[in-house]
Amino acid sequence: MTKPAEKKLHDFKIEAACSRTRARAGVFNTAHGDILTPVFMPVGTLGTVKALPPKDLVEMDARIILGNTYHLYLRPGTEVIGQAGGLHKFMNWDRAILTDSGGFQVFSLAPLRKLTHAGVTFRSHIDGSEHVFTPEKVVEIQEILGSDIAMPLDECLPYPSEKDQAEKSLEITHEWIVRSIAAHKLNEQALFGIIQGGMFADLRKKSCEFMAALDLPGYAVGGLSVGEPKDVMLQTLEATTPHLPENKPRYLMGVGHPVDFFTCIELGIDMFDCVLPTRMARNGTLLTRMGRLVLKNAKYRLDFTAPDPACNCYTCKNFTRAYLRHLFMAGEILGAYLATWHNVYFSLALVREIRQSILEGNFPEFKERFLEGYSD
Amino acid sequence: MTKPAEKKLHDFKIEAACSRTRARAGVFNTAHGDILTPVFMPVGTLGTVKALPPKDLVEMDARIILGNTYHLYLRPGTEVIGQAGGLHKFMNWDRAILTDSGGFQVFSLAPLRKLTHAGVTFRSHIDGSEHVFTPEKVVEIQEILGSDIAMPLDECLPYPSEKDQAEKSLEITHEWIVRSIAAHKLNEQALFGIIQGGMFADLRKKSCEFMAALDLPGYAVGGLSVGEPKDVMLQTLEATTPHLPENKPRYLMGVGHPVDFFTCIELGIDMFDCVLPTRMARNGTLLTRMGRLVLKNAKYRLDFTAPDPACNCYTCKNFTRAYLRHLFMAGEILGAYLATWHNVYFSLALVREIRQSILEGNFPEFKERFLEGYSD
Repeated sequence: MTKPAEKKLHDFKIEAACSRTRARAGVFNTAHGDILTPVFMPVGTLGTVKALPPKDLVEMDARIILGNTYHLYLRPGTEVIGQAGGLHKFMNWDRAILTDSGGFQVFSLAPLRKLTHAGVTFRSHIDGSEHVFTPEKVVEIQEILGSDIAMPLDECLPYPSEKDQAEKSLEITHEWIVRSIAAHKLNEQALFGIIQGGMFADLRKKSCEFMAALDLPGYAVGGLSVGEPKDVMLQTLEATTPHLPENKPRYLMGVGHPVDFFTCIELGIDMFDCVLPTRMARNGTLLTRMGRLVLKNAKYRLDFTAPDPACNCYTCKNFTRAYLRHLFMAGEILGAYLATWHNVYFSLALVREIRQSILEGNFPEFKERFLEGYSD
Repeated sequence: MTKPAEKKLHDFKIEAACSRTRARAGVFNTAHGDILTPVFMPVGTLGTVKALPPKDLVEMDARIILGNTYHLYLRPGTEVIGQAGGLHKFMNWDRAILTDSGGFQVFSLAPLRKLTHAGVTFRSHIDGSEHVFTPEKVVEIQEILGSDIAMPLDECLPYPSEKDQAEKSLEITHEWIVRSIAAHKLNEQALFGIIQGGMFADLRKKSCEFMAALDLPGYAVGGLSVGEPKDVMLQTLEATTPHLPENKPRYLMGVGHPVDFFTCIELGIDMFDCVLPTRMARNGTLLTRMGRLVLKNAKYRLDFTAPDPACNCYTCKNFTRAYLRHLFMAGEILGAYLATWHNVYFSLALVREIRQSILEGNFPEFKERFLEGYSD
């Protein structure tokens, strides 16, 4: 008998690559299970994917969810999550968790921030209390959270930014990743690198080369989807992924519109997270294969068809547009639950279908077929 | 081979009766399954038990839920529910439904109501539009809803009321039940009678005798839990149930505090409904075997025990007080979901345990033991 090869933690195995695009299908191994890529990661900001219990996320086979370090640090705080035994135990989720660094929220939510090479000082958007995030502190918080994938502190540039500003900012981000690696002790946790560089192709290339040399278990592309036009985002991404190592997963932060999945996987992206599916759901808008469906629209009052007839989720298999419309018109909590169920399932399933098309060698055809039927 | 005896629709079979109290355990047969009594019926006002999907209600084995005719008539309206094929199909619930008459809501929610022998004119609490409920109209609405148990229109007296007022009101309620029976055509639907009579024992007796003579499939006790002291409620109930037929289920409308289950089952009540478990849950208060648990209380910040350690519900088996407190402090929808899960399960399970104690002949002992451990 031969002993099976031991699976190495944080190993990324590419199972298939598209011959006509940069798309690939892989498996990333974490301490809480295998992640089949490309993958959509539902956002669980405050220790809950808004409106959904963990059992439903398991039912729809979500393998990894995201937690926000900034939010969890402020509420309930690391003392509570630490004493609970980490975020997995606190929220009763035994599959994988990725935590961001909090950097994006500090730069987008928190007032009165002050950035130096040491770190960033900011005030809580909840109670105005002052806090300091350093690369070391952010690593420490995420080690207490005990996530499977951690992100280093980086500076998120606003759009648009001048090149000299982007260049100086990139220096800080690179300085900080080195300090993050030095501070990081938790072996079961993969610390990714984050590529920055604004919308400048040469800076992106420089950032990729710098990060690649650090031989991290995965790389995130940050600083995109921050207000720039879609074509600028795609051009920047196109100029970024060729400079990333082939054998490491690539995570595009904060992106997750149905069309984005196709255009960004085509450019070599493996992982996505986005609040769009959950946020839109709570506002009564469903993602469907035909485009957005606004449930409060009067035309659905007597529409007893499934929200998305091609969808196999709990909501679409059991409820009608007329019923969902009624729930939203009446302000019923169940509306948020059922709409979130659908939107999260839809996003997970769509990316799974894309993965399948890569394995079967027909990703470009699947993309074309999807885009033909879809309009927003 | 002998053919099994055909089960008669709306048959009520008493399986066991307590020898020391009026408590009994029975089975009421409906077109959507058997109801094991005593039973707690979760309230699903607008075609949803607030915050819970039907699959979870099935998981906790709720056999019957309540819908509110007044609310459903206004939103989404009988046209929508009628075209959906009835309330069961509209909300995807294939177990039993009881609908009230809307009378209670007209008298408690709607402004500018005007009562005559013909019926009651009122304005919608949502848009001020004018509507008329007559006994015939209310039967017709409930036939469109297609509930398994329907309630006739009755007049709900405020507390306190003078005796002559209660007497006149009772006349109207009795007149209306006769008209309701005449209008009722849906055989699969059981039309119950409602006992009124204020807090006057002789009027209650009179109402019971009048209703009993109509040989209806079940009887509700109305006009209680309307602001009177608890001992007045229990005295009135004590003076009511002996005058109701033994072989028909007895439904106490709007009552469902944990202690009420014991004191009212002891007086011969079989069915309960109450918004308390669901409403308290959304406000962050849990029902437990020890009494109320207010989740936002600071003492639960680092309390990693189950909300109710003796409870087998999804929430108590998987989450801690500290986590639930966090969800409520952060205003997360999942808090309302998990708290509702627990409170509805708790109420269902408690009444099921009472049923079991009646079957085993130790209801008084179970009551004593529960009350010893419980304080509010």
